[in-house]
Amino acid sequence: MPRAWHLKSRPSGMPTEDNFELKPVELPPLADGQVRVKNLWLSVDPYMRGRMNDVKSYVPSFQVGEPMDGGAIGEVIESKAEGFQPGDLVQHMSGWRDEAVVPARIAQKLPDFGAPPELFLGILGVTGMTAYFGLLDAASAKAGDVVFVSAAAGAVGSAVVQIAKAKGMTVIGSAGGAEKCEFVRSIGADQVIDYKAGSILKGLAAAAPDGIDVYFDNVGGDHLDAAFAVARNNARFAICGMIEGYNAKEPMSFRFIPRIIAARIQLKGFIIFDYFPRMSEFYGEMAPWVANGTVKSRQTVVDGLENMPDAFLGLFKGENVGKMLVKL
Amino acid sequence: MPRAWHLKSRPSGMPTEDNFELKPVELPPLADGQVRVKNLWLSVDPYMRGRMNDVKSYVPSFQVGEPMDGGAIGEVIESKAEGFQPGDLVQHMSGWRDEAVVPARIAQKLPDFGAPPELFLGILGVTGMTAYFGLLDAASAKAGDVVFVSAAAGAVGSAVVQIAKAKGMTVIGSAGGAEKCEFVRSIGADQVIDYKAGSILKGLAAAAPDGIDVYFDNVGGDHLDAAFAVARNNARFAICGMIEGYNAKEPMSFRFIPRIIAARIQLKGFIIFDYFPRMSEFYGEMAPWVANGTVKSRQTVVDGLENMPDAFLGLFKGENVGKMLVKL
Repeated sequence: MPRAWHLKSRPSGMPTEDNFELKPVELPPLADGQVRVKNLWLSVDPYMRGRMNDVKSYVPSFQVGEPMDGGAIGEVIESKAEGFQPGDLVQHMSGWRDEAVVPARIAQKLPDFGAPPELFLGILGVTGMTAYFGLLDAASAKAGDVVFVSAAAGAVGSAVVQIAKAKGMTVIGSAGGAEKCEFVRSIGADQVIDYKAGSILKGLAAAAPDGIDVYFDNVGGDHLDAAFAVARNNARFAICGMIEGYNAKEPMSFRFIPRIIAARIQLKGFIIFDYFPRMSEFYGEMAPWVANGTVKSRQTVVDGLENMPDAFLGLFKGENVGKMLVKL
Repeated sequence: MPRAWHLKSRPSGMPTEDNFELKPVELPPLADGQVRVKNLWLSVDPYMRGRMNDVKSYVPSFQVGEPMDGGAIGEVIESKAEGFQPGDLVQHMSGWRDEAVVPARIAQKLPDFGAPPELFLGILGVTGMTAYFGLLDAASAKAGDVVFVSAAAGAVGSAVVQIAKAKGMTVIGSAGGAEKCEFVRSIGADQVIDYKAGSILKGLAAAAPDGIDVYFDNVGGDHLDAAFAVARNNARFAICGMIEGYNAKEPMSFRFIPRIIAARIQLKGFIIFDYFPRMSEFYGEMAPWVANGTVKSRQTVVDGLENMPDAFLGLFKGENVGKMLVKL
């Protein structure tokens, strides 16, 4: 019988394995317009932490006692939908489980770029789009800009580093620990700051003696404050994530936020869903970059549905290099 | 002999009268292209607090032992500059003193709008321009928007309230104490929050049950955090001043800053100098508004050069309603 992860209880602060429960689910017979999908790859993403809370946001909360969901890649094993055949690979939102019944209109057949299917949960999927539109649209980054990106060894951050280099920018990345810093360097960052080795403010001031034009924020907190401190006039910040705040009960403190005024800084929060209508623009640049090696993809893969909460919790402990995925 | 206020010492935290010294200054004979001006009105503004620190910013620091400067309106009493006659009223930047020698190219003859000259230090000057371009350009506010403005009884804030009403917006203003709140109501605000009477967050949530589209920030701190909390999707914040932070040694804390992402909030810091090339656009709307009473000007006037530090320090104690001016 298919199994799915359910939200057992809501966390206060950092979630634990006790908040999750793996239970059998009964799937209905297929109705017209539906496909049955055997999942192959499941995505865990920091934004899911917000869905564990009981607050209104841009995606619905998970409900206690109910199955969770999220991004997934699977193979169609039964179809009552026109244009879908058993064997088709599809991307859909019924993750956190091994099998799903999905309306075909919200399943997307993977484009034929000759890329491994799991890349559509990463560099060729929402992760890559987040990096692409956040950098080029929300932050209006352009050739010649000095770009600072936090969590640069992470899924989105490592994509930002590579897109920025492909577009002729100077890139400073931050990551925690020598191994991750080496990875960030290996994908082309001009400078790398190990935030575990010292103050991020001092590190950034040394790496960017003339300041930064763009900050791509994945973490909030001290990184954001350091970016306020060193921003050049008319700097643009794309605010993509504040992972430091997701499990924190304390507010974030900023010493340098008044520099927003003197340096005419612009901050823009964005949600990738708003850019879905521009997906072909993204594919048009990213698919060739991936095919010709300009942009490389790196995944941290956890095996087995049983280990999915582990994989998810690992995101907040910095356990992933590149995109964190669960392989079934 | 002319006298000028000098910076005697740099303050740490809130300045005191001991940081200022009034001393005679010797003025040179006029050179070609210069005018001698007898000052009539002097401006004190919150941004001058930043100039008392020894840090690089968008205007040069005051230097210890040297005369201070700032906005002023005066009468030409001697001229070696073409086009300037004794009796002309001019606006210039040699304030904090009773008499000045000024290059005519940086003195501006007051436009003939039939308005009292002191308004060119307020609603028809930098103060009014700050409100106008901050609201309409930095925050892209438009008819129908729900606009929240902090320090709404202050010089810039009271101008924002009236411009927003003239442009068909709904306006919520905050001010400290019953008298100021009554003033904010009298100039047209739809709702007024007395931040001294309770939590600004609760007050704003009650005043804006459906959220806000625009926040015009003059104070930072809890006001800004409350605005994060209630911002609607795609809200725009114009960051004009953070008076709460100017004398503080502690960083500002924000509980709701992660809402930047979910609500796709945009923050834009701005400096009014950047808008000086668009002054005629401002005059074109504001001069008729002032003439026909759509926008009213209110000043808090302190008499005498001797009392100028008092007037300046009063800005940080909330002693002004409308624009704070010193009359000589």
